[in-house]
Amino acid sequence: MAAKKEEKTNPKAKLEGLGKEQLKEISLGRSPKFTTLTRTKSNIMYDQKEGYLRLGRNEEERTFLNISQSKRFMQTIAVAAKCHKFVKENLHTTIRGLFYQLKFNLGEDIDENVFDEQAESNPIIEDLEVALNLKREDFNLNANRKGVLAGQLKVLDTFGNEKVEIDCSKMGRSGWQIPSDVDNDIEFVDVKAKYVLVVEKDAMWQRLNEDNFWKKENAIVLTPQGQASRGTRRIIRKFADMGIPVYVFTDSDAWGWYIYWTIKTGSINLAYIGDSVATPEAKFIGVTMSDLDRYDFLNKMTINATEVDLKRASEMMGYEWIKRHKEWVEELTRMLKSKKKLEQDALQGPRLTFVGDYIREKIKKKEFLP
Amino acid sequence: MAAKKEEKTNPKAKLEGLGKEQLKEISLGRSPKFTTLTRTKSNIMYDQKEGYLRLGRNEEERTFLNISQSKRFMQTIAVAAKCHKFVKENLHTTIRGLFYQLKFNLGEDIDENVFDEQAESNPIIEDLEVALNLKREDFNLNANRKGVLAGQLKVLDTFGNEKVEIDCSKMGRSGWQIPSDVDNDIEFVDVKAKYVLVVEKDAMWQRLNEDNFWKKENAIVLTPQGQASRGTRRIIRKFADMGIPVYVFTDSDAWGWYIYWTIKTGSINLAYIGDSVATPEAKFIGVTMSDLDRYDFLNKMTINATEVDLKRASEMMGYEWIKRHKEWVEELTRMLKSKKKLEQDALQGPRLTFVGDYIREKIKKKEFLP
Repeated sequence: MAAKKEEKTNPKAKLEGLGKEQLKEISLGRSPKFTTLTRTKSNIMYDQKEGYLRLGRNEEERTFLNISQSKRFMQTIAVAAKCHKFVKENLHTTIRGLFYQLKFNLGEDIDENVFDEQAESNPIIEDLEVALNLKREDFNLNANRKGVLAGQLKVLDTFGNEKVEIDCSKMGRSGWQIPSDVDNDIEFVDVKAKYVLVVEKDAMWQRLNEDNFWKKENAIVLTPQGQASRGTRRIIRKFADMGIPVYVFTDSDAWGWYIYWTIKTGSINLAYIGDSVATPEAKFIGVTMSDLDRYDFLNKMTINATEVDLKRASEMMGYEWIKRHKEWVEELTRMLKSKKKLEQDALQGPRLTFVGDYIREKIKKKEFLP
Repeated sequence: MAAKKEEKTNPKAKLEGLGKEQLKEISLGRSPKFTTLTRTKSNIMYDQKEGYLRLGRNEEERTFLNISQSKRFMQTIAVAAKCHKFVKENLHTTIRGLFYQLKFNLGEDIDENVFDEQAESNPIIEDLEVALNLKREDFNLNANRKGVLAGQLKVLDTFGNEKVEIDCSKMGRSGWQIPSDVDNDIEFVDVKAKYVLVVEKDAMWQRLNEDNFWKKENAIVLTPQGQASRGTRRIIRKFADMGIPVYVFTDSDAWGWYIYWTIKTGSINLAYIGDSVATPEAKFIGVTMSDLDRYDFLNKMTINATEVDLKRASEMMGYEWIKRHKEWVEELTRMLKSKKKLEQDALQGPRLTFVGDYIREKIKKKEFLP
C-alpha cells in the first residue's frame, strides 16, 4: 500500500523537481535547460539481452537562451505545467484536451499561441515521459482504449471517491474493457489464471467467451481488438510480471504477426517505454503455416496472401529479433513460397467449437513459436 | 417472458418456413424460388413520415431453374442452412466464421466450393435478413462491437447457462461494453435515466465518466467510440422506445455530423433494417458553429476545416432530411463560409470540467438542433 502511494505521488514530485531545476539554473544566472533521450531511429535499438526495443543513450538538450531552441523549451515547460495541474487537480484528459488547454492559454499571464497544432505538443509529451521515466498515463493523460478481457480475476478500481469491485468472471457477453491506465488507483486481485490467452480478433474472443473457454481452462482470455493499445500492452506486461504465461493467437498474416511482435518486443513508436509495454516472454500459439501439416482440413481453408502480406513477410526476415528464430524463418518462407495465408477464423470450419480444442491441444503439446 | 421466448424461437421457425416453402414448390413440380427486397440505391428512400432511411417495395427473385440465378439461389439456401444450424446449436459466430463453414463444406454431402470469397456470402446474409424481417444477430451472427456506456441501469445477460447481472453504475473507469446483440437473451432493468447522452469520442466519455456526470444528472452516458456499430445503434433505438430522450454530442465537422445523422435517420448501408437502428427522435446538442456566439472563448479554439469537411458540408446541404431544417443549413453555411470547424474537446480549454457544464446548460435551455 505504501509502494502504491509513492507511485501515485511520484509524477507530481517529479514534475515539481523539473521546475525546481529550472529555477536553480536561473538563480545561478545560467540558462535553464531540459534534457531528454533522443527518440530518432538512430537511437532506437533492439536489446538482445532484454528482448525488446528500447532507446539508446543519446541525449537531446534544449536551452532557453538558444534562439533555435527557445520556443521548444518554452513549449516543454508549458506542457509540464499543464500536466502538473492535471495531476494536482486529480482530473484526467487526453493529449487532445491538453492541446486545447494550451491553445486556450498557458495558465499564467502569457497569452501567446504557443501551439498551433497538436503535432507540436505530442512529441513534447513523449519528451517528458522519457525525461522523467514515467508514462503519460501517470500525468493523467488517457490514451485511446481498446481491448477486452474475461477470466478469473477481480479489478479494484478506485474511481472518483468510490472503489468498485469488478469480477471479470461475471461480465457476460461483454467482458471488461481494458482502461487506458492500468497502474494508478487500480488493483488486480484474486488472479487465479494458469495462463493469459491473447486473441487478435474481437469476434474470436466472443466465440471463446461463449464457450466459457476461460472458465474451463482457468485462464484469462483477452483481445486487443486488433493492434494492442498502450493499456492493453501494459496489462499483458503486468500479467507476465505476476508469473503468468502469455500465449498469443493471431492470423497467420502480416497484420497478425505485427500484433504478436508488437506485444512481444514492443515497437519503434513506443521504444521509449519499451520496458513497460513489451512482453518478451510471450509465445506464439498460432495459427501457423505449419498448422497445414497438423490439420489436413486447413489446406482448403487458406486464402490468397496480399501484396502487403508478402512485402511484410520479406521485411520481417531481416529483423534481427525474428531472423534468429529458425521456426519464424520457416513460417515466413512458407508464406512467401505458397503466396497463401491462414486466418484464425478458419478454425471454425469443421465446427464452431473447434477453436478451443485447437488451443488446448497446442498448449498441451507446447507447440509454440518463440 | 412468453414474448421473449417467442422472439427467440422466431428465427429458427422462420428459417424452417423458408425451407418448407422450397420443398412445397419442388413437390408441386415447380422451381423453388427465393424473394427478397432489392437493396440497390434506387430502392432506398427517406421516409419523411417515419424520419429514417428504409427500403422501398421493389422485389428481387431468384429461382433455381434459371441458369443465371441458380448459383446464387444455391448460395442463399446454403447460408440459410448454416444460420439454422447456428441457431439450433445455440452457438454464435460472425459472417467470417460463416464464410469458413461454407468453405469447409455445405454441411451435407455436396463438396463444392460454393463461395470463393466472403464478398459473395455477405450480401446473401442481408438478403435473408430482409426476406425474413430479422437481423443477422437473430441468426447468431455477431457483428463488430464498439461502444461503451455507464449510467443508471442494470443488464441481465443470459450467457451460456448462467444469468449475470451487470450494474452499469458500478463499472468504474471502464464502463459496460455494448455487445453485438442487445435483443436476444438480454434484458435492461432498473433503467432510471432521465436522458441518454451519446458522446462521439471515447476520450470525452472518459472525461464525463470521471466527473460522475451520469450520476449527477441521472442519465446514461454512452459513446459509440466514433461511428456507431449495429449494436450501439440498436441500443439507442431501444432506449428511445423506453421513452428516454436521446441527445447526441459530437464535433462540429463532417465526421461528427455523419455520426449524428447515422444515429438519427439511419444509413444507406443499413436502410434494410432502418426501423431497428434509426432514432429519429434524437436531438443534436453540439458542438455547433453557433456556439461561437454563445461562448466567446470558443472563437480562439476553432481549427481549420479540411477539404473533406467542406465537401461533405456541401453535400449535406442537398440531403432532403437535412435541408428542410433551417438550423442545419445555417450550421453548414457557417462552416463553408468561415472554413473553420470546432471539436468537442475544445470545451476543455478553460477547465477540464467545463464540458459537463456546457451540456447541462444546453439541456436546461433546450438548445438543440433538430
